[in-house]
Amino acid sequence: MTATLALGRFVAESKWGDLPEGLRHQGRRSLLNSVGCALGVARSQPVEMAVRTLLPLRGAERVSLLGRAERLDVLGAAFVNAIGANLLDYDDTHLRTVIHPAAPVLPVVLGLAEARGLSGAAALHAFILGMEVACRIGNAVSPAHYARGWHITSTCGIFGAAAAKLLGLDAGQTAHAIGIASSESAGTVENLPSAGKNVSVGNAARNGLFAALLAQQGYTAAPSALEGPLGWARAMGDVPVVSEIVGELGTRWEAGLNTYKPYPSGIVMHAVVDACLALRREHGLRAEDISEVVVSGEQLLLDRGDRAVTGERDSRVSIHHCAAVAFLFGKAGLTEFEDTTVHDPAVVAFRGRCRAVLDSASPRGAATAAVRTTDGRTLSATVLHAKGSLEAPLSDAEIEAKVRDSAGHGGFAGAVDEVISLAWAVDTAPSVVGLMAAARAGG
Amino acid sequence: MTATLALGRFVAESKWGDLPEGLRHQGRRSLLNSVGCALGVARSQPVEMAVRTLLPLRGAERVSLLGRAERLDVLGAAFVNAIGANLLDYDDTHLRTVIHPAAPVLPVVLGLAEARGLSGAAALHAFILGMEVACRIGNAVSPAHYARGWHITSTCGIFGAAAAKLLGLDAGQTAHAIGIASSESAGTVENLPSAGKNVSVGNAARNGLFAALLAQQGYTAAPSALEGPLGWARAMGDVPVVSEIVGELGTRWEAGLNTYKPYPSGIVMHAVVDACLALRREHGLRAEDISEVVVSGEQLLLDRGDRAVTGERDSRVSIHHCAAVAFLFGKAGLTEFEDTTVHDPAVVAFRGRCRAVLDSASPRGAATAAVRTTDGRTLSATVLHAKGSLEAPLSDAEIEAKVRDSAGHGGFAGAVDEVISLAWAVDTAPSVVGLMAAARAGG
Repeated sequence: MTATLALGRFVAESKWGDLPEGLRHQGRRSLLNSVGCALGVARSQPVEMAVRTLLPLRGAERVSLLGRAERLDVLGAAFVNAIGANLLDYDDTHLRTVIHPAAPVLPVVLGLAEARGLSGAAALHAFILGMEVACRIGNAVSPAHYARGWHITSTCGIFGAAAAKLLGLDAGQTAHAIGIASSESAGTVENLPSAGKNVSVGNAARNGLFAALLAQQGYTAAPSALEGPLGWARAMGDVPVVSEIVGELGTRWEAGLNTYKPYPSGIVMHAVVDACLALRREHGLRAEDISEVVVSGEQLLLDRGDRAVTGERDSRVSIHHCAAVAFLFGKAGLTEFEDTTVHDPAVVAFRGRCRAVLDSASPRGAATAAVRTTDGRTLSATVLHAKGSLEAPLSDAEIEAKVRDSAGHGGFAGAVDEVISLAWAVDTAPSVVGLMAAARAGG
Repeated sequence: MTATLALGRFVAESKWGDLPEGLRHQGRRSLLNSVGCALGVARSQPVEMAVRTLLPLRGAERVSLLGRAERLDVLGAAFVNAIGANLLDYDDTHLRTVIHPAAPVLPVVLGLAEARGLSGAAALHAFILGMEVACRIGNAVSPAHYARGWHITSTCGIFGAAAAKLLGLDAGQTAHAIGIASSESAGTVENLPSAGKNVSVGNAARNGLFAALLAQQGYTAAPSALEGPLGWARAMGDVPVVSEIVGELGTRWEAGLNTYKPYPSGIVMHAVVDACLALRREHGLRAEDISEVVVSGEQLLLDRGDRAVTGERDSRVSIHHCAAVAFLFGKAGLTEFEDTTVHDPAVVAFRGRCRAVLDSASPRGAATAAVRTTDGRTLSATVLHAKGSLEAPLSDAEIEAKVRDSAGHGGFAGAVDEVISLAWAVDTAPSVVGLMAAARAGG
């Protein structure tokens, strides 16, 4: 059986009752986290521009945009909502592949469920299946795929969007949808620092759904579209490990391994933030008590994080900036990585008191922060597993707090309580209309 | 200067007066040939299904579909018109890259020109520039790109669609449009025997234009989106020859090297058809006069063409079928490769009287046909340069004849005279509205 047919059967035949409660809850966490991220940037320039581009092109059947009053057809809304969810890379992470699985999948699910009056349980079910498809295909080509220049959230996320359970396709049609999506899969790492990234992430949702709509009308794909000699994986430079796609379907759940970022910074910076916050908290330190901070960690941490900071983008992957905001503000939320904070003289000065040094014995993902205080003490804290990792997952309350921070930052403080309560109860709701109304434009 | 910026400047600064008349005429030939191909299949299943998928999603501003009464927004129309032009691979060929350059570019140009009331000269100018961009980028990665599994008409055609001169973008915006398209470029060879091919060709037009519309609203791409270390070319497995993209812009014209197929068969079969037609014509042969046909040529011809014929798709790349229809019907048009012809007992029997043999001394693209007649004669003809090649281009009259055959086949015999005369005069028309009206649904 080919990879697309195995996935097509799995998706088409999956029943809500087959999903363990732990996985369903992971789905609710992924949904809430993703909606929260989108609300934080719903009024940002990249989202504005995308909406302006799509408004004149929107079809008659319209669905909601997260954090916006305009409505677009399901394809356009999938594009805009995916951009918002992933804009700051603050969303979820499937750590093995570094796919952000919710962004390409959830907008398709919410749009179809809203437009067609489908239940919250059906939506959550489809969401989990879509993430599963994307992450399994990602596993089959990781880690070389990303390293070669493919933005894996886009290139593999599209398969999760194409596996659109909510369209009611049979196994063969679902296989064709996934196979068609292999001829739409795109997005480069080179374009990540530009709006080109938004386009590939948005298109993963938009074109993935388009593949499914075409399959519903009878379009087909080659049987071995993914793993064939001139197919998707090999054209992209990968020899796919097909068993990662087709093995243990329904018992091994990659979607259950989703993680959530506590800070809108590069994931390897999280242990730095945690170590600095721990020192601040445990020793009651104020920023003015500190004469120097020395952060140590493995080579990857230094390669990513030991850099000059010129603006928002650098600050998210700067060891010095992460340490500075942790000590100065006791948090590292959206505000702490904005240009006004980055250029704040107190922050600039504190970054100058930070150094990064190599500790080749430090494990991947760990960091140690050592401070020298103005009164001569040396204090240090080591974090092996950063908050948000599989070993130290965010609690539900921590996800809620993140969503509150993000929504408040985006101007949706008044709506966020309702969004949170509707998200936790999504699979008991007869439809997603209430959730979408709350998330639309402030409730 | 990066490749996208060089192309952006070239496109934005190009003036209609800069284009030599020979190139303009090549543009008119490409346009007419492409519209003719689309008319031939406008009522086929793949086009029907695409229209059905897009009708509920169409925006308010609508443009024409070639050979159809429905109208779609510019993105949807670009998709459908691109599919039609390329459906049978009967369209144009830039031989060095094997790109079919008109299909991804012309639908964008015609849609924008129709929607915005732009002149025929502006449309033809934009069309030629778009083909130029696609073929230059294709040259930079050929021939390895196609061999690796990338459907180059889709993966490079999208850049021609993105270089949408008619939007009036400046050099930087055009560069960004091309750079954004690098994060949308997709389409595999594995999917060529399926509708997945239509999706990547259609998306080359649709997503290419989308990139340009996003750039118009302010979206950007990485400066080295094409040639950077983690950019489009290298992610796809190619070390691009950048000088192929940026060298001699405005003096070396790849768009001027476009060629047109006289027969809807694989391009290496064309010399077989020509040789058989020559024998039939020169010796007044009837099919029943022939007891055996031996076609000889190089290895590539045999690899492609010495095969069992089970249906329409095989017949287009069958030496035996091409010889059979040439001798039986004296032509090799659309009808001669349809299932009814393929399964016609007289055709089946004639194919059985044909053999293919290797002649390793035969040059690429050549073929020899030798017949033994029932009265004992042996006659042979060799064709070195098939009709339609750069050395033996179709005359304008031959392109007209092809377009008449195709349009008639599609049910548009009544409209084709007007389409042909409007196409030859396109750059003197104040708009393309007349041409699109004639091509829409039979005039």
